[in-house]
Amino acid sequence: MSTTRLPVRPAALDAGRDGETEVAVDRKSPTGLGAVVDALTEAPEGCRGIIQPGRNGRQLLPSRDVVVAQVEALRAILFPGWFSEWDLTEESLRYYVGATLDRVLHVMQEQVERGLCVTCDTHGQGTDSCAERARDLTQRFLARLPEVRRILWTDVEAAFEGDPATDSVAEIIFAYPGLRAITYYRLAHELHVLGVPLIPRMITEYAHSTTGIDIHPGARIGERFFIDHGTGVVIGATAIVGDRVRLYQGVTLGAKSFPLDANGRPIKGVDRHPILEDDVVIYAGATILGRITIGRGSVVGGNVWLTRTVPPGTSVTQSQARQTHFDNGGGI
Amino acid sequence: MSTTRLPVRPAALDAGRDGETEVAVDRKSPTGLGAVVDALTEAPEGCRGIIQPGRNGRQLLPSRDVVVAQVEALRAILFPGWFSEWDLTEESLRYYVGATLDRVLHVMQEQVERGLCVTCDTHGQGTDSCAERARDLTQRFLARLPEVRRILWTDVEAAFEGDPATDSVAEIIFAYPGLRAITYYRLAHELHVLGVPLIPRMITEYAHSTTGIDIHPGARIGERFFIDHGTGVVIGATAIVGDRVRLYQGVTLGAKSFPLDANGRPIKGVDRHPILEDDVVIYAGATILGRITIGRGSVVGGNVWLTRTVPPGTSVTQSQARQTHFDNGGGI
Amino acid sequence: MSTTRLPVRPAALDAGRDGETEVAVDRKSPTGLGAVVDALTEAPEGCRGIIQPGRNGRQLLPSRDVVVAQVEALRAILFPGWFSEWDLTEESLRYYVGATLDRVLHVMQEQVERGLCVTCDTHGQGTDSCAERARDLTQRFLARLPEVRRILWTDVEAAFEGDPATDSVAEIIFAYPGLRAITYYRLAHELHVLGVPLIPRMITEYAHSTTGIDIHPGARIGERFFIDHGTGVVIGATAIVGDRVRLYQGVTLGAKSFPLDANGRPIKGVDRHPILEDDVVIYAGATILGRITIGRGSVVGGNVWLTRTVPPGTSVTQSQARQTHFDNGGGI
Repeated sequence: MSTTRLPVRPAALDAGRDGETEVAVDRKSPTGLGAVVDALTEAPEGCRGIIQPGRNGRQLLPSRDVVVAQVEALRAILFPGWFSEWDLTEESLRYYVGATLDRVLHVMQEQVERGLCVTCDTHGQGTDSCAERARDLTQRFLARLPEVRRILWTDVEAAFEGDPATDSVAEIIFAYPGLRAITYYRLAHELHVLGVPLIPRMITEYAHSTTGIDIHPGARIGERFFIDHGTGVVIGATAIVGDRVRLYQGVTLGAKSFPLDANGRPIKGVDRHPILEDDVVIYAGATILGRITIGRGSVVGGNVWLTRTVPPGTSVTQSQARQTHFDNGGGI
Repeated sequence: MSTTRLPVRPAALDAGRDGETEVAVDRKSPTGLGAVVDALTEAPEGCRGIIQPGRNGRQLLPSRDVVVAQVEALRAILFPGWFSEWDLTEESLRYYVGATLDRVLHVMQEQVERGLCVTCDTHGQGTDSCAERARDLTQRFLARLPEVRRILWTDVEAAFEGDPATDSVAEIIFAYPGLRAITYYRLAHELHVLGVPLIPRMITEYAHSTTGIDIHPGARIGERFFIDHGTGVVIGATAIVGDRVRLYQGVTLGAKSFPLDANGRPIKGVDRHPILEDDVVIYAGATILGRITIGRGSVVGGNVWLTRTVPPGTSVTQSQARQTHFDNGGGI
Repeated sequence: MSTTRLPVRPAALDAGRDGETEVAVDRKSPTGLGAVVDALTEAPEGCRGIIQPGRNGRQLLPSRDVVVAQVEALRAILFPGWFSEWDLTEESLRYYVGATLDRVLHVMQEQVERGLCVTCDTHGQGTDSCAERARDLTQRFLARLPEVRRILWTDVEAAFEGDPATDSVAEIIFAYPGLRAITYYRLAHELHVLGVPLIPRMITEYAHSTTGIDIHPGARIGERFFIDHGTGVVIGATAIVGDRVRLYQGVTLGAKSFPLDANGRPIKGVDRHPILEDDVVIYAGATILGRITIGRGSVVGGNVWLTRTVPPGTSVTQSQARQTHFDNGGGI
């Protein structure tokens, strides 16, 4: 096959170049912007959703920045004193925790309500019941915090025991992206379990952006979970991870393929990600796809592509690499 | 080979330890900083460029923060209502779009001018013509926005159809790093096509920093492009990607090697990255290098290292991994 | 093996669902938060360290935000004019450098002191000697800046010569995540060599978060070091990297396994990461584990899993991928 019968045209991009769809610079307007403003104020045919005006003078979309601020406030509560901006004494701790929870309750419930509104069928209607439901969900979410903290502390211990590079719990709490991502995930997961739409994904995407670790809020993950380094880790929505599991950077627990409905669209909600039983270790860059099971205590080597179930106590490694010697500076 | 004939010395770092090149703490100066200030105010021999004072009392370098703020303003225009800080009504939308474009025009043209200045041969001269050219380029860039928005909407649709984990366009717009990176890329690409130096790369590096997805502004990418998860994706400067292509995290479309000039430096501007024809799918962690072509509709499995052209309709997967069983807890 | 004998229960998460450990929403309290505040103010059994109140009315933990601000101030000094917010003239440069160093000295020494306090055995005691030691360490750190700048400039040159995609030093300094991560690493490494606890890891984790590149401050890295793209690169604490080494994205220089002490915990401080001799090139996604040596001038191909020493001048590539043709649209 020759590469010369190309180029593969990115047709849409080329089209504008020929003036077919481009909005020309408006030379009559001093800024040249008149026609651009016109075009951007209209939604293109077939995609009204692209423009989201507020409804009834009210902005109904949640705000990533606001959600992120609440999550960071909760992280400071879960590790009190570690991330706060002022001194804590044993006396002031209670005031600090109480004030933060009170503020988060009010702000978060507004965001949860917006999330409910944007995804519910009765757009802009029924906001009274949305508000009530949002308050109830947020209260139930906050009631889970002690349990979340308990589990997070097992994650801290797992990092301490699993990484010979550190001899300091402080280092793990301050500087381990794995713990940071797991903290965000465990909060998002609680919201997900409660059925809160949109907000959990905004939280885990914030985790992804700051740590390179992408854990879907729907994944179910046991105690003493340790992700080392972590950049590129992906854990899919229906993955199940047992206790005492250790993952290194670049590990994917993903979907292999998925059934399509009659319209050729993927059927949502099918179990399609791996199950890792207790005490599994997956080394850097392994790609594990499909609803398969990695048996208890198994070890998967780096850069392996694995799409089949393996029994407990299995070791999987990449086939032998080819090695040649060269004298002339030549390489690959 | 033994590891004992080492250490490989990081010679430069060791040298300072012996006092050869280290600036000693200046004990006569109360802060000990006198000699450090002296040393840092002088550019070292052979690298004058390391210090960039303003010219004619004017700071001529572009600012990443300012460029990023403009890009975010444009993203809020491209998805109006989704990322804005205040309520939009259908009436206020036009004012909002107009005001944003007007501000971006003025601020961006200053940054474009700085980019032109820092890279042009007539440093600090000819700024009048630079200013004029910068204004023209920025106007032409903004005139492309309606077309950029049209293509981005096809990308939103591709994400919706390609990912069984979501049933919400809102989730894609708010929380999909792939769409975010593609939005930044499509803006940067327009500036690149217009010949604006430096600014496009600042934009895509911002994309890379926030999403882990590194798309060079020079790459040409068709419609309905979907990157899932995305951390670690690299798309090189001369890559060409057709329509309806889907990439997963960790995919590299990179260069294998490159010809050197008479001085042993890489020749710039040679086509050296892959061509992906329409409807290609590349799974997580595949590394595809060189000016090869992946034929229409082909599927490349995860973690594959691929440096040769494959015809349309090809499936490429990693060779079988080795699997062993262990009973004694031993692993890799 | 069947997947049906599952589910692997994330036991801790399920427990709360059954009301065993969950703090119920406190219906008597108007906000429902009373019991949550109580629970979070108490440290759970066996993990007192989770709560870190200030001692003697003084917040003794370092702050990531403050440390990051100092590092950015130093980056602006190391590349003067490139990242500053105002105009520099040759006259003002000296004032600017001096004022920045003076401020960093004072702020950083406070952070170093906090780092010393949080990790030393005499918690909250001996702060006088901690303060003195912190000042001395910070002065010695700042005295290394000229040498750090000299080495960084060799890294800039290596990027310019190693990447055909750029013809501009400005682009490298403004937009190359590799250079950015290396800058942070070289600063952190100096603090690490001086024995400053905690702060170096906070710096490299900031690098990791903004660039996806995770270099442990303890690694020893020679001159003219180039990381291209870089997302997912991991360089472990005891790795040694020679001069003129080039890494691509996703490369791991990691540990394979590590000896355990009598209590089954990893022994800290053992050399366990690879040694790369001079002039080695490692392509995208290669995973290189253990205290092995990659001989001078060797080239390791993408996605290779390598756990053995190779002699100088070796080329290592992944074994041949399987390629099949399909006609019916089927894939992997």
